[in-house]
Order: sequence, then C-alpha cells, then structure tokens
Amino acid sequence: METKNILIKDAIILKQENINGKIIQSGKKESLLIENDKIAEISPKIDSIAIDKVIDGTNKILLPGLINTHTHISMNLFRGLADDMELDPWLNNHIWPMESKLNGDYCYIGALLAQVEMIKSGTTTFNDMYFFMEDVARSVEESGIRGCLSYGMIDFGDSKKRENEFRENISLIKKCNNQANGRIKTFFGPHSTFTTSKELLEGVREKANKYNVGINIHMNETQKEINDVIEATGKRPFEYLDDINFLNEDVLAAHGVWLSKEEIAIIKKNNVKISHNPCSNMKLSSGISPVNELLANDICVSIGTDSVASNNNLDMFEEMKFASLLQKVNTLNPKLLPAGEVINMATLNGAKSLGLENDIGSLEQGKYADMILIDINSPNLTPMSNQISSNLVYAANGSNVHTTICNGEILMENRNLTKLNENEILEKAKIVIDELKSI
Amino acid sequence: METKNILIKDAIILKQENINGKIIQSGKKESLLIENDKIAEISPKIDSIAIDKVIDGTNKILLPGLINTHTHISMNLFRGLADDMELDPWLNNHIWPMESKLNGDYCYIGALLAQVEMIKSGTTTFNDMYFFMEDVARSVEESGIRGCLSYGMIDFGDSKKRENEFRENISLIKKCNNQANGRIKTFFGPHSTFTTSKELLEGVREKANKYNVGINIHMNETQKEINDVIEATGKRPFEYLDDINFLNEDVLAAHGVWLSKEEIAIIKKNNVKISHNPCSNMKLSSGISPVNELLANDICVSIGTDSVASNNNLDMFEEMKFASLLQKVNTLNPKLLPAGEVINMATLNGAKSLGLENDIGSLEQGKYADMILIDINSPNLTPMSNQISSNLVYAANGSNVHTTICNGEILMENRNLTKLNENEILEKAKIVIDELKSI
Repeated sequence: METKNILIKDAIILKQENINGKIIQSGKKESLLIENDKIAEISPKIDSIAIDKVIDGTNKILLPGLINTHTHISMNLFRGLADDMELDPWLNNHIWPMESKLNGDYCYIGALLAQVEMIKSGTTTFNDMYFFMEDVARSVEESGIRGCLSYGMIDFGDSKKRENEFRENISLIKKCNNQANGRIKTFFGPHSTFTTSKELLEGVREKANKYNVGINIHMNETQKEINDVIEATGKRPFEYLDDINFLNEDVLAAHGVWLSKEEIAIIKKNNVKISHNPCSNMKLSSGISPVNELLANDICVSIGTDSVASNNNLDMFEEMKFASLLQKVNTLNPKLLPAGEVINMATLNGAKSLGLENDIGSLEQGKYADMILIDINSPNLTPMSNQISSNLVYAANGSNVHTTICNGEILMENRNLTKLNENEILEKAKIVIDELKSI
Repeated sequence: METKNILIKDAIILKQENINGKIIQSGKKESLLIENDKIAEISPKIDSIAIDKVIDGTNKILLPGLINTHTHISMNLFRGLADDMELDPWLNNHIWPMESKLNGDYCYIGALLAQVEMIKSGTTTFNDMYFFMEDVARSVEESGIRGCLSYGMIDFGDSKKRENEFRENISLIKKCNNQANGRIKTFFGPHSTFTTSKELLEGVREKANKYNVGINIHMNETQKEINDVIEATGKRPFEYLDDINFLNEDVLAAHGVWLSKEEIAIIKKNNVKISHNPCSNMKLSSGISPVNELLANDICVSIGTDSVASNNNLDMFEEMKFASLLQKVNTLNPKLLPAGEVINMATLNGAKSLGLENDIGSLEQGKYADMILIDINSPNLTPMSNQISSNLVYAANGSNVHTTICNGEILMENRNLTKLNENEILEKAKIVIDELKSI
C-alpha cells in the first residue's frame, strides 16, 4: 500500500502533556502531518514532499477524537421509545419487549445509525456492550471508527445460559479482535453483579487473562442494585468482586453511582477504571456519581453517554458539560471538574480505560491519527476564551465538529460523511423501527 | 403595506391546547398560513389565492419559537472570560473589571452576536436586563426577534445613584416600549434585593404601575444572598418584598434557587413568575431550584439561560434538557418534568412570564407568527418517538433548527440568516473583544 499523507495546516492544536504526573494543556497554531494511520509530526511548519491532501486548519481547533467509554449503540433504534418513567416499567414494558424482537440485521442498522451520529459529533472510539456483536463489528468495518466490543453476558445462575454466553463472547473475541485494521478491540461483557452468577464472573476473569482482553461491566448504578447484591452475597458489589479476585486494571466499570468509601478504596487498589454517564444517571434518576472523590483518589474516570434510550443522544460535547456542571452543583464547589480536566476525561482517560493509552487519546507523534477539527467561526463559539477547553466543554455541541478523522482516514469533512452514506442509513433505520414496532 | 403570506406546508405541527386547565400536546401533519405578522390558519389543507412564499414542511416539526426568560445578551462578549471559580473572584477579578469598560457600541455588538446565536438555535423572544439598553434596543430593531428589555438598576442605598437608575430605566421605557413593530417590550429591572434600597424597590412598584410595564428581578440565587438579605432586613427576600407590597403578577423573578415553604406560598399568592436557569445555577454552584415543587403549586416556571458568561451558550434546547434531568436526579424521580411539560415551560410559560400569553408562546390562529422548523432528518433525531416532545427535549440541540420565523418574518432559512449578516457580526465581535481586553 502506498503511503498516504494528510497535512492539517495552521490549526490551533490541543496538546496534553504529562509533566510530573500532571496533564498540562496548551493550544497554539501548528500543523500536523498524518502518514497512513499515524501522526507523523506536529510542528509550526511542516515541509513534506508528497502531500496527498491538505486540510486548512485556519479558524479551527484540532483535538483528539472523543472517546465514549460506555454505550449500547444498536439501541439507537430505541431513541425516545419511552421516557419519564421508573426503571422497572421502562425495562419491562418498553425496552425488553423490543429487544426480544432484535436480530443481527436490525442491530447492524442500529449500530450504523449510531456511528453516523458519532462521526458527526466528534466521537472516534466507542466502547459497546450488547447482543449480535458480530453484526456490530460488521458495521464498524464499514464506518471507519474504533469500536471496543463486548457481548452482554447474563446467566441469572443458569449453567446452560452461562455456556451460551461464553460461547458468544469468545466467538466475538476470536473472530473480531484486532479486525478492521486493528480498529476493533474485543472485551468480555459480564452484564453486572446482579444478573450473573459467581461462576460466570470467575470464568470471565480466567478467560480474560487467557485471551488477554479487558472486561466491561455495569457497576453500582442504582440503590436497588446495591441492596439486591447485598442480599444475595452479603457484600456491596465492589467488595464482592474484590473477594472473588475479579478486579484488575483491565476492568472498566460503567456508572459507579452508589459507592462506599471502602469501595472507592477497592477501585483504587485494583486500578479499576470508571465510566461516568451523567445524562443517563440523571434521566433514569439513578443518582450522582462521586466523580470528584474518585478523581481526588487518582482513579481513572472517563465519560460515556450510555445508550440513547436513556440519554437520548450520543453527543460527547453535551456529556462533558453535564459531567462538569453536575459535580459543581452537587458539591456547591464551582472549581471542581474544570473544563481542561473534563477534556482529559473524554480523551486521555478514555484511552486509558480501554487499554489504548499508547495508541490514542491525545495528539502525539506515533499515536494513531484519530482527531477532530472544531470550526470556531461559529456564533456559539465566539469569542474564543484564552483557555482553549472552555468553549469546547461549556459552549460547543457536536454540530461544531467540522472534520472527523480516524485511523488516518477522513470520515467527515465540512460536515459531509465521506465513507458512510448518511441518507441511506437514516432511511434504512426508519424502516427497521417501523418493522420492529409492527411485529 | 401589502399583505405578505407565507405558507408552511405539511409540517408536523406541535399544538398545545388548554383542556380543562391541562395543556394537551399533539402533533400531526398540517399546514400553517402566516398573513403579515400573524398566524392566519392552521389546517390539513390550506387554499390561498396569493402565497408569496411556500416553505416545505416535509420531515420537519413546526413549534413555537422558544422564549428565553432570563439573560444578559451583551455579555456574549464575555463568553469563556473566566470559568471554574467562586462567585466573588469571578465577579471581582473578571466580570466587573470588563463591565467597567463597556459602552453602548460594545453592548450593541455583543447583543447582535447573541441574537445571531439565538436565531440559529431557535429562540425568538428573550428577556434581558443589562446596561446601555437603548443600544440593545437598536440591535433588536435590526435582528427581527422579540426583546423584553430592562435596565439593571443598582443603588446600594445611594439616593443620587437611585435617581440615575430611574432616569435610565424610564428613558428606556419612554423611547423603546412597543418599538420595532411592537417586538420590543420594556420592563423595570431592579437588580435584586441585596443591591437595591427599599426606596428603589418601592419606587419601581409605583412606576411599574404608572407606566404599565412588568418587573424583572434576580431573586434567591445563592445562599449568601439569602443570609445577606436576612441580615439587612430581618426577612428572607420574598418575605421582604411581600411586606413592602412589591410583588404582583407582573414580577418575573430569575433563579429562585433557595426558597422556603413560606416563600413558595408568597410566590403563589402573588402569582409571581419564576425563570429557572439550570446551567448557570449548576456552573456557578448556586444550587438546585425546587422547580418540581413550584410546578406542583401551579406556579408559572419558565426557562432562561442566564448570560453566556455563566452558561456558556444560549441554546434553549440544551437548557430544556438540563432543566428536566436536574429535577429528575435531584428528587430521584424520573417522572418529574416530562418532556412535554418542559416544552410548555420554554414556550407557553415563557410567554405568560412576560405578559405575552395572548400574543406568543403557542401556534394558534391570531397569535404572532413566531415559530421554528426542526429538521427531523438528522442522525441525532432518528428515529422520531411517538411522543413529539421527546426528541426535542432529550436529543436535539440548537443546530437542528432549520428555519426561524419571528413576527411573520423569516430570519433564518436552511440555517442561513436572511436579515443579519452573520460573518460581519462575528468579525466585529472579535475586534470588540480584542479592544476590551487591551484597554
């Protein structure tokens, strides 16, 4: 394959440098050279003999592609299916009946719909747990973005079901890990401590070590869940997982809303990563995660949207704003989660949460070329603050993304998708929803 | 003047009908005819002899223009000036020093910048309190949207200052009320109970009656404010205002974060309106307004963004989502502030808060033609829920607005401004910021 060079010229480039353990952000006008799938150079002036494509970065901020560390993208089909209700009737009367009708082709379309939304709002990597994941992998092959995929394993103590869940997740790992030019990573996806048996969780730990893949799990989302796990095991969820030696630095736990001091210590001790999902936690009235305490304990917290069924979009810009503002008002401390830290959570911490910190999450020579350009010549971004992160977190939304690049490939330019056919996918999705509702 | 007719054909039209005191929302495919500045007809099929302009409403939702009931639009110049800090250093070290450099021309440009942002995100009416308000009025003449304008009166007990404040606000009322084809309404703007004397507040009540204009005031925003007012007057802010007979149905109070049961009863008794500003209250860590209690008491609560200095945008779609999700998580009750109610807050309640309920706030024959078209053929709005308000509140942002019409005039079509020159205003604003920073 021929070398393919893209030069992004004269953009304000967001750099995040780790200086003595502290991330220092800066943004100045520079150029960035992409060679094939990697960042080859960042400097004020780049001379390169053969440039295939030059992108004018004037009046634009270049930042790492955003990393959504918790979602269920095929559920894009269920946007607005039901809102404003208690969790039980929501699941029992609306979500689960629809999920029972799903098949691989439906999930494939739902996943494509989600990826159109993500590319258009600046997300270049997502972490997903759901069913029909090999069909989701098929959609990631086409979309050009990075997907971390796990099968949602649920056994409720049934050994037959358990066997099936391992078969499914291991098949996904064997067939799809590192596929799509390395854009697909696979994980084990034990759903939660209240929907799986001890045997399943112990098996996941053993097999995750064997296959050298990470683990994606829901943890401590609702008060009811905590009570149920205490009733079943005598322990709080993280205490229980610590006791059975499940926890390790390869575990990414979504939500982490209701956490005891002891559990925070357990998370820290095992270097478990937390995906914070503020919109979903607010909309479902789950509660408010003590994100400030987690960060104060040097725990790696990243940001996820959860599915659009409980959000109801995949806009990581909006999610960053929710994350910051929710901590501020919950503690009555406006200094918490300042804009720069929130950008780090949605980029560097996201990469670390997925074991990809050497590959993505910041604009550095040698990392994969995952990045987005923000058009600052917009009424909602004028004026630009001296602090580059301020407008990004507090004023922007996904529609300010002008160009999206993943793995060195331009997926959107001037808001036009270059790889996926947006209209065709929207039309197909509408047909699928109508089918699902009529079955 | 010749009759000007605009026909919006085959849009999904959001109707909000008051049936036995309950607002019932519906949305079905219909057409809407605008004659001059008014809505002339809404029906499935409209035959009109002379149509000057037809807008295709296919794949679009038509809803009332959103009403932002609390902001300070000239402060758009201060977006991102300073974030993530306590109120006192934020005001003392950043906002007030910049405000001391303002003049009428700066405020005019800031106000135009804000109106570009509002038109592009679907707001057709805003309620503003600031300085140099006759220059803001000048910008409203040009922009085409509706502005409710008050001068921010502050005397700190100084009688000389007080005289000046009355002179300023009364001059605004005399010169600007009902100007710009009736799009400008004027109000008195006593800043708050902790920045004004009893004499000022009593004078405002008397003069508001005399000039037949409403009153716009900040109330109960922070804990410190409550303590200061108790120290100064022996009473909580609303108790104090009730005692001096200041309160009436023409009072619109912004924030209402810290409210005692007694104050809620006072608000209800006097039919005072509350403008809820969730983003600003969260970002400044002011606290969480008991909006659900206010609504349960049949108090009229509308939605405002506050200025972009503490938000940091004017996107009412984002603000609606924040309003709903914040109440849900604060009460752990997901049923509160359902999407339909939030739409009513941002439209009908906004109109009522400004005394304009017979003029705007819903799509009804005889009301002024203030409305926006939402393009539902967007990845973040696919699929559409059966409940029309779901995507609007939980999934949309201002960039989904396709067309904005105010007072029968098209201000934006297919995201292009037709009346204001967007690029010119952005460029002028950048120059003004640089000047302000360099003085």
